[in-house]
Amino acid sequence: MYIGIDLGGTNIAGGLVDENGRIKYEGSCQTKSHRPPKEIILNIKDLVLEIIEGYGIDKGQVKAIGIGIPGLADKDGKVIFCVNLGWKNEPLREILEEELDIPVYMDNDATVAAIAEYEYGRMKGAESAVMLTLGTGIGGGIILNGKAYSGYNGIGSEIGHMVIGENYYDCNCGRNGCFETFASSTAIINYTRKLLAQKSTDTVINNLIKGDIDKLNAKIIFDAARAGDEIGNIAVKRLVKYIGIGIFNIVNLIDPQIIALGGGMANAGQFLLDLVIEEVLKNKYYKSLPMAKIALAKLGNEAGIIGAAMLSRHTG
Amino acid sequence: MYIGIDLGGTNIAGGLVDENGRIKYEGSCQTKSHRPPKEIILNIKDLVLEIIEGYGIDKGQVKAIGIGIPGLADKDGKVIFCVNLGWKNEPLREILEEELDIPVYMDNDATVAAIAEYEYGRMKGAESAVMLTLGTGIGGGIILNGKAYSGYNGIGSEIGHMVIGENYYDCNCGRNGCFETFASSTAIINYTRKLLAQKSTDTVINNLIKGDIDKLNAKIIFDAARAGDEIGNIAVKRLVKYIGIGIFNIVNLIDPQIIALGGGMANAGQFLLDLVIEEVLKNKYYKSLPMAKIALAKLGNEAGIIGAAMLSRHTG
Repeated sequence: MYIGIDLGGTNIAGGLVDENGRIKYEGSCQTKSHRPPKEIILNIKDLVLEIIEGYGIDKGQVKAIGIGIPGLADKDGKVIFCVNLGWKNEPLREILEEELDIPVYMDNDATVAAIAEYEYGRMKGAESAVMLTLGTGIGGGIILNGKAYSGYNGIGSEIGHMVIGENYYDCNCGRNGCFETFASSTAIINYTRKLLAQKSTDTVINNLIKGDIDKLNAKIIFDAARAGDEIGNIAVKRLVKYIGIGIFNIVNLIDPQIIALGGGMANAGQFLLDLVIEEVLKNKYYKSLPMAKIALAKLGNEAGIIGAAMLSRHTG
Repeated sequence: MYIGIDLGGTNIAGGLVDENGRIKYEGSCQTKSHRPPKEIILNIKDLVLEIIEGYGIDKGQVKAIGIGIPGLADKDGKVIFCVNLGWKNEPLREILEEELDIPVYMDNDATVAAIAEYEYGRMKGAESAVMLTLGTGIGGGIILNGKAYSGYNGIGSEIGHMVIGENYYDCNCGRNGCFETFASSTAIINYTRKLLAQKSTDTVINNLIKGDIDKLNAKIIFDAARAGDEIGNIAVKRLVKYIGIGIFNIVNLIDPQIIALGGGMANAGQFLLDLVIEEVLKNKYYKSLPMAKIALAKLGNEAGIIGAAMLSRHTG
C-alpha cells in the first residue's frame, strides 16, 4: 500500500492506494496557505495518520508516501519553490520522514498526474508520453522509457514556460510569450475580457456572466463558442492555435508516443480535442510519418492522489 | 573498426574510425545531388570500399557503417526526407547492406554530431546533453541516458522547427516562427540585409562585402559587431536574444546537463558564447537552482564522420 498526497493551494487531498492504483480510502483538509509552512506540513502528517487509522492498517504496511507539489523540489526532497503557497526551501521530506518514519517522495503535480495517467490512465503502457494540464497555468509531465522525467537539475518538463510567441501581457515568471500565457484558462479568460472591452458585438457571454465580469470562466467561453457566439469562437480559435503550437513543439523536441490533455480546461472534452487535433494535423509537414496520438486524460482529479502514491516507483 | 559517412548536399565525406573514436583514414567524393539517388548511393558504396582498401584492412573487420543524413530516416533505414538532396523514401540501408554485406545505420546529421560530442567531445560522459548545430538551418541532437534520442516516431530533436515567436518571413517548412528563422546563419544574414536596405547608417559591412550583398555572411556580421559597428551589433543582439529563447525552451523541457553549440556559426567562438550565456542567465528565474552548462562544441567538421561511425552503439 502507498499513500498519495495532492498538495494544492486550497485543499490537501490524500488517499491510500493499493498496488493496482485503486484508491482504498480518502481524506482531506484545508491548506490555509497563509500559515507557516511547518504547520501545513504537520497537517499533512496528521492527514497521513488519519488515513492509516481510518482504513485500519498498520503504519508498517505503507511502503511509501508520495506528494504532488505545485512547484519544484530538489533531489533532497526540499521544496525549492511553491509560488501559490509562498514556500521557499522547505524541508518537506526531512520533517515528514522524521515524524512518520515512512519514505517520502515528491515531484511537481503535473509530473504526478502524468505518472497516474501512465500507470492506470490514458497513457498506460506508452513508451514515451507527455501530459499537459491545462488549468489556470499549464503544467507538463514527461514519461520516458517508463519513468517520470524531470531533467538533470529537476527543472525540466516546465512546458508551460516554453516561449512560443509574443503576447500582450507578461507571464508570472517575468518573461513574455510563455505557452501558459496563450493557452491556459487564465489566458482565454484574459483574452475574452480584452475582446469584451473592445468589441461592441452582441454576445451571449454577457448573459451567461449576468453582467459580472468576475464570473467569466473558461466553461462559459466554451459554452458560448459551442452556441455559435462570435466572441466565444474568436477566443477559442486563438486558444486552439496556441495549444497547437505548443503540442507541435513537444512533437518536434520529444516526439512522444502520446500526448494527453488534462486539467480543468480538458473538461471542454471532445469539442476541444477535435479542434486541437485538426489544428495540429493542419501544420504537420511530414505527412507520411506517424506522430503522437493526442487524447484526453482519463483520471481527472484522482490523478493527483494516484500518481503521488506511485512516485516511489518512478524515482531513482 | 567502423566506417562513418557524412552525407552532405555538396560532398560525401567518409572515414575509418577505431574503437576510440580516432579517424584512421579518410576519403571523400562530390555529391552532385542532381543525380538519381541510386547513383549517389552507389558512390557511397565505392567510397566505403576505397576507404577499406586505402587503409588495407579486411571488409570483415568493419563492424558497422553509419551515415549522417541531412534529413530523416525511418526505423527500417529508409530515408524519408532529405530536402537538400531531393530524396523521398530512398532505401539507403537496403541497397548498401546488399552491396556491402556490412550492417548499416543512419540518423539525422545533427544527432550524429551530438553522438560524436557525447562520445569524444564537449559533452563527453554527460547524463543528458543537447547539441545545437547553428548553420544555414538549426539542427538538434539529444542524448538521454547515454543514448541518442530521436523520439517514438523518429521525428523528435527537430529543435530548429520549434516555434518561438512570430517572424517577418516564413520557414522552409511552411510555418512561421521556427527557431531557425531567428537564430541560424541564414536568419542573421536575412535580417542584416533588411537592416542594410532600411538604414542609411554608415556601416563597415558595406566595406567588408565590397558593395556585393551576395558576399554577406555570418562571419562578416560578427566581425562588424566585434569592431563596434551599429548594424552588426543590432543583428547579433537579435540573434543572441533568440538563441537565448531557444536554449531556455530546451532547459524548460529537457533540462539537460549540458548544451553544446556547433555548426558554422559556432566559429564566432567565445564572443558568441559569452553573449549567449549572459542572455540566458538574465532570464533564469530559479536563481538558486543549477542549470545546463552551455559550451562550444569541440570536434568541428570531424563530428560528422566520428558520430556516424558510432551510430551502431546508439541504436536499439
